[in-house]
Amino acid sequence: MVVTVIGLGLIGGSFCKAIKEKTSHKCLGFDINENVLQSAISTGAIDGIAKDFSEADLTIVCLYPEAALSFMLENAEKFKKGSLVMDACGIKSEIVKKAHPVLSQRGIFFIGAHPMAGREFSGFEYSTGNLFENASFIITPTKDIPEEKIKLAKDFANALGFKRTVVSTPEEHDAIIAYTSQLAHVVSNAYIKSPTLSKEMGFSAGSFKDLTRVAKLNEDMWTSLFMLNREPLLFELDVIIENLKKYKDALEKEDSIRLKELLREGRILKELSLEREKKD
Amino acid sequence: MVVTVIGLGLIGGSFCKAIKEKTSHKCLGFDINENVLQSAISTGAIDGIAKDFSEADLTIVCLYPEAALSFMLENAEKFKKGSLVMDACGIKSEIVKKAHPVLSQRGIFFIGAHPMAGREFSGFEYSTGNLFENASFIITPTKDIPEEKIKLAKDFANALGFKRTVVSTPEEHDAIIAYTSQLAHVVSNAYIKSPTLSKEMGFSAGSFKDLTRVAKLNEDMWTSLFMLNREPLLFELDVIIENLKKYKDALEKEDSIRLKELLREGRILKELSLEREKKD
Repeated sequence: MVVTVIGLGLIGGSFCKAIKEKTSHKCLGFDINENVLQSAISTGAIDGIAKDFSEADLTIVCLYPEAALSFMLENAEKFKKGSLVMDACGIKSEIVKKAHPVLSQRGIFFIGAHPMAGREFSGFEYSTGNLFENASFIITPTKDIPEEKIKLAKDFANALGFKRTVVSTPEEHDAIIAYTSQLAHVVSNAYIKSPTLSKEMGFSAGSFKDLTRVAKLNEDMWTSLFMLNREPLLFELDVIIENLKKYKDALEKEDSIRLKELLREGRILKELSLEREKKD
Repeated sequence: MVVTVIGLGLIGGSFCKAIKEKTSHKCLGFDINENVLQSAISTGAIDGIAKDFSEADLTIVCLYPEAALSFMLENAEKFKKGSLVMDACGIKSEIVKKAHPVLSQRGIFFIGAHPMAGREFSGFEYSTGNLFENASFIITPTKDIPEEKIKLAKDFANALGFKRTVVSTPEEHDAIIAYTSQLAHVVSNAYIKSPTLSKEMGFSAGSFKDLTRVAKLNEDMWTSLFMLNREPLLFELDVIIENLKKYKDALEKEDSIRLKELLREGRILKELSLEREKKD
């Protein structure tokens, strides 16, 4: 089939490269940056430039949330009737709520999607054909999407090396992602802000690196994602702040029994989580 | 020379294995667990069992803080006169303050040390001869320690594969480690405690893994380390809680400009930190 990828950044570029490396689909690309398009052609990441978006059996829109929405709404007339359109945004409720009715009305099937992969770098130059290996591909199809289109999305993800496709609802997706991904970026970004940071060299090991890795984030994209998922993220922020205060309280009171109990609770939760992962 | 390692857990066992793999020193070991000792002998991690601790030119005490202190104070008479004794604890002020005067009085040179390496597993079975590769070896020698003994410690660390030896004061060490290591363990342990954890499977990627890796900690050891370094750790906890509240506040007020600015600040700090590392 023909797959068109809109937006050749880290995620879109990686889709193109994975398609070319792992499938026999024809891959067209589109980006507002002409240099990126030329680079995608010259490196063989795409077979050509998508002209009017009507060729594709599957279109994947890899833009930031607002841009993805605008693009889909503005080009709703141009997609091939009966074709499948997916986005790749990190939040789903807002996207599905706004894109689905418009595309559906035009006879186009829309499935909200979120490839659970990324790097602490942006742009086509960092994209790789193996970015999705062992990652989850989350899709949030509405009830009217035929099984055949869901199967197409799953088979496509499978061919690209995703470990699995998880079917969820937009609301469930957004609530869980607020914890597993958004909170991680906020905490990491807050962690780096201690005045002690300037003396860290030579005094740090793996734990500091891990906690601060995603502090290097794209603030435009993440501000947009956070603002579109305020309630779930605020819930998670409250939970971690309240939990941190418990350790602080135990330390202030020099209550080592309580402190050990708090640490033990966390250790056990992490161990159970690792066991679930192993069984998976 | 003869090196005796006291306590053959993750760190002590890794010292033994690194000594045997990378140097020609004779390595003796001691542990209260007879099975561990036998395992260390049968795997060739030590040349033999340390009987009365008087053979060693260098003794490394790899026990938890309280146990390390008790061991050094109780056996102060037994170490060889003029020999070097080091601990490997994650806090230094308390250890140096209490161990140094007693050992010094007996003609033994004590240097507080902290190998900046670890794993989220404990025990001899997880120890490896390459644990210290690329890690920092921090030492906090008091002013009376002769240059020759400091050089011995540095050469020893160098031979074992440490990237560098950092000379610090106990107080500076403890203040920085509260940020780079202790806070990381508290935050990670708090992060895992969201009720959303139970739904995380299939919805997480690298950032969740990184943020929660060290949640799996040894609560006995870390409670002890935290209680012995309360003030610096409380300072860091306050800093991160206050910073997290700023993101929360911006989200609550739907202030996307402020939110983006907060994320930008963190991103730049992380980038500067990565640049310092690269130049290193």
